[in-house]
Amino acid sequence: MTAYEIISKKRDGLSLSAEEIKFFINNYTTGRIADYQMSALLMAIFLNGMDDQESRFLTDAYLHSGQVLDLSEIPGIKVDKHSTGGVGDKVSIILAPIVAAAGIPVPMISGRGLGHSGGTLDKLESITGFRIDYTRKEFIDKLKTVGACLIGQTKEIAPADKKIYALRDVTATVQSIPLIAASIMSKKIAEGIDALVLDVKTGVGAFMSSYEKSLNLARTLIRIGEEAGKKTVAYITDMNSPLGRTVGNWLEIVECIDCLKNKGPNDLMEITHLLSGTMIYLGGKSESIEDGISLSKHLLKDGSAWEQFLRIVDAQDGDVALLKEPEFYAESEFKADFPAPEDGWIKSINAFEVGTAAVLLGAGRQRSEDMIDYKAGVRFYFKPGEKVNKGDLLFTLYTDKKEIIPFALEKISAAITTSPVAVSPPRLIHTYLDKTNI
Amino acid sequence: MTAYEIISKKRDGLSLSAEEIKFFINNYTTGRIADYQMSALLMAIFLNGMDDQESRFLTDAYLHSGQVLDLSEIPGIKVDKHSTGGVGDKVSIILAPIVAAAGIPVPMISGRGLGHSGGTLDKLESITGFRIDYTRKEFIDKLKTVGACLIGQTKEIAPADKKIYALRDVTATVQSIPLIAASIMSKKIAEGIDALVLDVKTGVGAFMSSYEKSLNLARTLIRIGEEAGKKTVAYITDMNSPLGRTVGNWLEIVECIDCLKNKGPNDLMEITHLLSGTMIYLGGKSESIEDGISLSKHLLKDGSAWEQFLRIVDAQDGDVALLKEPEFYAESEFKADFPAPEDGWIKSINAFEVGTAAVLLGAGRQRSEDMIDYKAGVRFYFKPGEKVNKGDLLFTLYTDKKEIIPFALEKISAAITTSPVAVSPPRLIHTYLDKTNI
Repeated sequence: MTAYEIISKKRDGLSLSAEEIKFFINNYTTGRIADYQMSALLMAIFLNGMDDQESRFLTDAYLHSGQVLDLSEIPGIKVDKHSTGGVGDKVSIILAPIVAAAGIPVPMISGRGLGHSGGTLDKLESITGFRIDYTRKEFIDKLKTVGACLIGQTKEIAPADKKIYALRDVTATVQSIPLIAASIMSKKIAEGIDALVLDVKTGVGAFMSSYEKSLNLARTLIRIGEEAGKKTVAYITDMNSPLGRTVGNWLEIVECIDCLKNKGPNDLMEITHLLSGTMIYLGGKSESIEDGISLSKHLLKDGSAWEQFLRIVDAQDGDVALLKEPEFYAESEFKADFPAPEDGWIKSINAFEVGTAAVLLGAGRQRSEDMIDYKAGVRFYFKPGEKVNKGDLLFTLYTDKKEIIPFALEKISAAITTSPVAVSPPRLIHTYLDKTNI
Repeated sequence: MTAYEIISKKRDGLSLSAEEIKFFINNYTTGRIADYQMSALLMAIFLNGMDDQESRFLTDAYLHSGQVLDLSEIPGIKVDKHSTGGVGDKVSIILAPIVAAAGIPVPMISGRGLGHSGGTLDKLESITGFRIDYTRKEFIDKLKTVGACLIGQTKEIAPADKKIYALRDVTATVQSIPLIAASIMSKKIAEGIDALVLDVKTGVGAFMSSYEKSLNLARTLIRIGEEAGKKTVAYITDMNSPLGRTVGNWLEIVECIDCLKNKGPNDLMEITHLLSGTMIYLGGKSESIEDGISLSKHLLKDGSAWEQFLRIVDAQDGDVALLKEPEFYAESEFKADFPAPEDGWIKSINAFEVGTAAVLLGAGRQRSEDMIDYKAGVRFYFKPGEKVNKGDLLFTLYTDKKEIIPFALEKISAAITTSPVAVSPPRLIHTYLDKTNI
C-alpha cells in the first residue's frame, strides 16, 4: 500500500478501504506522507466524492489520530450542539447555559471564525479573561462541577483533522461534504458525548448555500454519528440573513446577555429554543422536543440560564462583573449610522456580504495570523419582515479603521433589500432529520 | 489574483486565462507558491481537463520559465522526433544518425526511463563515457560540427516542467493529456527546432493505452506545435509488444548497432524509417515522405548512418571502439533461457509486463535514486506473427540479481501469448496526423 496507489484509486473514482484511509491519514499526521500528496488526495476527494462508508472510515481515522475523551465518570447523558457556521450565529453561547441549567452536561469544543462566518471561540474570548485552552483534566473537572465547559480544539483532539483543515483552507478543498463531515464528527465524537444536535445552515451566508447540499451534509453527519453510537439529529435552518441583530464578537456577547435575560430577538430565540429543547429531550430531561422547548423557555424566564452562564464564565476565568455591566467595555473609535433612504419593508439582509464587511471592519481575520478587534462589527435595528420609515436607523457599524467606513457602509447597505409592500419574515426552520427519515 | 482563486476556478471546471496560468507557474517555479497548492491544481487539471487554449498557455508558461535555444546560426531546417515512450523503443538512437546523415541538423533533448518504459538517455549512457550534460554552447557547437547532439534536459530548459514533473510523479497526476502535452512541447520548442515528428504510442505498453486518448494527445500536441510556428506531424503507432528484440539499455544499444549496419528487425526498422523519412521530408531533403523513407533506407545501406553514429558518439565522449566490438562489454552475472513449452505462433508479448520485469532485473529504476544496471534486460528470439517449435528458445534474461530470476522468467513467459494456428504480425502504424486532418 502506497500513498501513490491510494491517490490513484480516488482519482479514478474508486472507493477507498478502511485500511487505505487509515494508512494515509496516520502517515500524514506523523509526517511520513507529504502535504503535496495529501492535497492531491483532497482535491480528488473534493471532485470524486466519498460514499457513506468511506466518510465513516475517514471520521474514524481522524478520531483515532488523537485521544477520545472518556466522560463516563460524569453521570447523565452528555449532549452537544454543532452549527455548520454562519453570520451572527451566537446560539451556542445562549444554549449551553440553558441546557446545563436543565441538568445536562454540555462538553463543547468550538471553532474560530472562518472566512465570512464568525466563531464561538472568538466571541467567548472577547469576554475579558475568558480562557478556552484548558487541559483534558481541567475540562472534565469544570464539566463535572459547573455542568458545561466551552473550549477550543486541543492538540490531543483529532490532530489529523487540525493538520488537514489547515491544508484544505489553502488548497480550495473546504466545501466537500465528506471532508466537512469527517472534520465535524471526529471532533464531536472525541468530546465523549452521547448525543448531538446539528444545525446545518443553508443559504447565502452558509458554507453550503444550496438546500440540496445542506440536506446531503446533514444526512452524512447523521449516518456517521449513529454509526458511532451517538444519537444524532439535525435541523436545516436558514442562513440567508444574519441571525439576531448583531455581527461582531463583543456585540454578539452583549446580545447573548440580552437573550439570557429573556430579551432576545425572535429569530435568534426561535432557533436557540429549538436546539436547546432538542438537546434537553435527547438528554432525557423531557418527554418530547416540544416539552424540551417549554423547559428551555422556562429556564430562561426564571433566570437559571443567566445564573448558569455567569458560573460558566467565572469557571473559565472570564470577567463576570463585565457581563453584568457590559456598558463598561471599551467602545470602537468610530461609529457610523445608516438611515433608511425610504419607507418600506426589509426583505432580506445578505449574510455573506455582512459577514465579509464585518471582517473588513476588524471583527474577523483576513489572514490566519491577523488579530481580531473584538469591539468591531455591525448592529442592525430591523429584521427581515419589519417595516421601516425613511430616516429610521437601519444599522450602525463599529470599527477602529476609519478608512474602511465608506466602503463598509456601502457594502452593508447594498446587502439590504427592501420591498414597497409588506413581506413576511422568512421561514427559519426548514427540516428536521434523524435516523428514521434520512 | 491568488493561487487559491486559480485552484478554485479549475476545481469548478472553468477555463484559466493566460495570466492566471503564467502567475501560477512562475510563482511555483520561484517557490512563492507551495508544492501542496500546485498538487491540488494538478489534480484539478487531471480530473477537469484543459481546453486547447489553456494547453497552449501552459506550454508557453513552461517554455518561458527557462531559456529558448536560438539555433538560427545553424543553417537548414532543424528537425526532431519525440516518442511518448514505450518498451524497447530505441528508435531515436538509430534515427538521429540517419537524419543527420541526410544533412538535417538534429537537436535532440531526451528523457530517462519512467516506470515500465525505457529512456533514450539511460540507453546512451550505457555506452562507456557517453556524456549527456553539455552546456548550451557546447550543444550548439556539436550540433553545428557533427550534425546531431543528444542530451538531457538542462536546468535552463523549461525548469517549471522539471519541477512540476517531479511532483506529478508522486501525486498520481502523470497521465493527463494537457499536462503531458505541455511537458513535451515546451521542451521541444525550447530546443530551437523548426519541425517535429511525434510518435504517439498506443497499447498496453504506452502511457496512453487507449487509442482514443492517444489520438487526443496527438491532436493536442500538433495544435500546440503549429500554434508555436513549428511544423508538427504525428503517427500513432502500436506499443502492445516491445519494439525490436531487446529490452534493456546496453542490449538495446547492441541492437541499434545491428540496425545501423542494416541488420535490424522488421518492426523496429519499419517505425524507424517511417519517422526518419518524415523528418527528412520536413527537413526539406526529399519531395515526399515516401522519398524520405527511400533516402533513409539508402543512408543505412551505404554505411553513412553508421559512420554518422560513430561521429556522434565520439563527439559526446563515448567509447567508439566498444561500438565496433560490443562483445567486449561486461556481461551480466546471470543469464536464464526460456524454451517454448509447445509448438505455436507468437500472438503478442505484453510490453507493460516485459517493461516492469526489465526494471526488476535492474534495467530501470524502482525509485528515482536507484542505479541502473546497464547490462540487465531481456532478449527475445521471436516476434509476434512468427512460428515457434517446442524447445526453441523464446527469450533470454540478463541480470546480476539471482534471486529475481524465477519470478522474472515466470512474469515474462506469462506475458507471451501464443496461438495454435498461424497469426499475422500486428499492424504497427495506425494513423498519420498533421494540421490538415486533426
